[in-house]
Amino acid sequence: MSYEHQTGEIKKIQVGLLGFGGLGQAGARVLEPKREMNLVAIADRKGYAYNSEGLEESACIAAYNQQGSVGYLEPGGTLSTNSIGELIERSPVEGYFLALPNLPNTFMASVAQQFIDSGWQGVLVDALKRTSAVEQLLDLQDSLQAAGITYLTGCGATPGLLTAAAALAAQSYAEIHRVKITFGVGIANWAAYRATIREDIAHIPGYTVERAMAMSDAEVEALLEETDGKLALENMEHADDIMLELAGICARDRVTVGGVVDTRNPKKPLSTNVQITGRTFEGKISTHTFTLGDETSMAANVCGPAFGYLKAGINLHRRGIYGLLTAAEVMPLFVR
Amino acid sequence: MSYEHQTGEIKKIQVGLLGFGGLGQAGARVLEPKREMNLVAIADRKGYAYNSEGLEESACIAAYNQQGSVGYLEPGGTLSTNSIGELIERSPVEGYFLALPNLPNTFMASVAQQFIDSGWQGVLVDALKRTSAVEQLLDLQDSLQAAGITYLTGCGATPGLLTAAAALAAQSYAEIHRVKITFGVGIANWAAYRATIREDIAHIPGYTVERAMAMSDAEVEALLEETDGKLALENMEHADDIMLELAGICARDRVTVGGVVDTRNPKKPLSTNVQITGRTFEGKISTHTFTLGDETSMAANVCGPAFGYLKAGINLHRRGIYGLLTAAEVMPLFVR
Repeated sequence: MSYEHQTGEIKKIQVGLLGFGGLGQAGARVLEPKREMNLVAIADRKGYAYNSEGLEESACIAAYNQQGSVGYLEPGGTLSTNSIGELIERSPVEGYFLALPNLPNTFMASVAQQFIDSGWQGVLVDALKRTSAVEQLLDLQDSLQAAGITYLTGCGATPGLLTAAAALAAQSYAEIHRVKITFGVGIANWAAYRATIREDIAHIPGYTVERAMAMSDAEVEALLEETDGKLALENMEHADDIMLELAGICARDRVTVGGVVDTRNPKKPLSTNVQITGRTFEGKISTHTFTLGDETSMAANVCGPAFGYLKAGINLHRRGIYGLLTAAEVMPLFVR
Repeated sequence: MSYEHQTGEIKKIQVGLLGFGGLGQAGARVLEPKREMNLVAIADRKGYAYNSEGLEESACIAAYNQQGSVGYLEPGGTLSTNSIGELIERSPVEGYFLALPNLPNTFMASVAQQFIDSGWQGVLVDALKRTSAVEQLLDLQDSLQAAGITYLTGCGATPGLLTAAAALAAQSYAEIHRVKITFGVGIANWAAYRATIREDIAHIPGYTVERAMAMSDAEVEALLEETDGKLALENMEHADDIMLELAGICARDRVTVGGVVDTRNPKKPLSTNVQITGRTFEGKISTHTFTLGDETSMAANVCGPAFGYLKAGINLHRRGIYGLLTAAEVMPLFVR
């Protein structure tokens, strides 16, 4: 067996999205022009939609935003209080991007367990954020493998793209001293990312996940008013650390993640970057830097990698490689 | 099956080096402190050395530099005019780094053919440079696969580390417009890299591979005298282009490689970097940049990735994945 070089040789992949908020909708838009992937299934909290020929992204977004669920899509939509469970059972999908909220922190692992229990086989990719969420998935490693599921975790921007860049950059060094991720995010209107902003607030000293989740929109608005719409975050619990540790690159305490989120301006408050500092075999200390272009949005930097890892995961799954992998161990493949 | 997360679980890899000039010797030094890899075999033009317990790097370097071949190593060395062939036949090695000269341009493919013909199975990693050298290896794709060899090509710095960074960065974009690699190399004394410098000279307008190879040391010295020891190179024939094309990322004419080599100063004349420009799914044009720390040497940026790809290749080979792969398709794994 070998990898296909010509990506044209790969069979068109039937893809599903779980979650259809800001991230899920961006995912649908990213997929729309792709020749190698076909978006055939979407589930949100209240329903799901399936079409073996492919779902029309704009119709799905309209149904969700105007009526509250893709379950209202005509034809193809179904309202359900067990939307993920029913979708898994009824839809031949080879890989899902879990564009789900990170909170509660047990959510991603519980969805993974649902896939394991269903007997479904295929590829799952998440863009989760917290170290503890990856720890829960690690507990499922054996079950995922036995179930024939290839699960790639931490496949968004950070963790994801930047973690992979750190893993790559580490190759120049005999020892890694520090990986420092600093992100800038600018969004025009936080209301489009209600779940994400609460996840960010949960990282602020004095806040907990529970407290952030319980905040009303008005309370979030009031907090943002105090800071001119900006959230400054330091030493965040971010899964980049455990992913680099699992890849054998450095102890997790050498990895730090922080940044600034501007909720009132699509322009990034600073350029997102990762710096990798280490010692070469000759004893020199140096730092490699990977910097994202300011014009690239959070959505582009999360969804692009997520589908790139999904394609790589399909390659592995078709070769019988199952279990839990992270974005630091696999090269995402470009989806055309 | 799954990948090992804990790199400690991987069996110690018995590694060989073909070629023991500047690059091969740096490779031996990189391997020296590694717990996961054991350097057991080295071949140069005039001989080879093998020790199943591991070769002592300093003794091998002394034998080569003082007597002209590792074949003089006592014990373990053998002088031979068919050093590669005899080493392959007599030594149980799981993976080789081909630290061989790039010239003649057919050399890497001829060595690959030698491995195929020998019946050996394992992993080969090269750090070749030219597009046409990869094209010759592509012709061997089916033979490598049938032989049970996993061959990873273009696994040095550029192509290699920077190509992989470009493949990773491409994930943020719907379309890639340009990949621009600019390298700075500083070496204290070109005499330690006689083959590499001639390869660089071959890229200068007016020179050919044949003409550069035929140059005496005095002629190289005279050329360098004219340019204050610096070689400025533009639009080089570099395999980054074909590797990104094979990975489906962009047409090869969108990839350019150039740089400056200072042969009289270990300080880099400029910071090596790769810029990846593309269009996001929202229609924004932007550029990601990956920049190498100036204190990292060519040797660190070539040999580190080469062994990282060798470890990744071993993972693939043990799972029955054979054939030709490039550095843009596989994530190198950190060797501890």
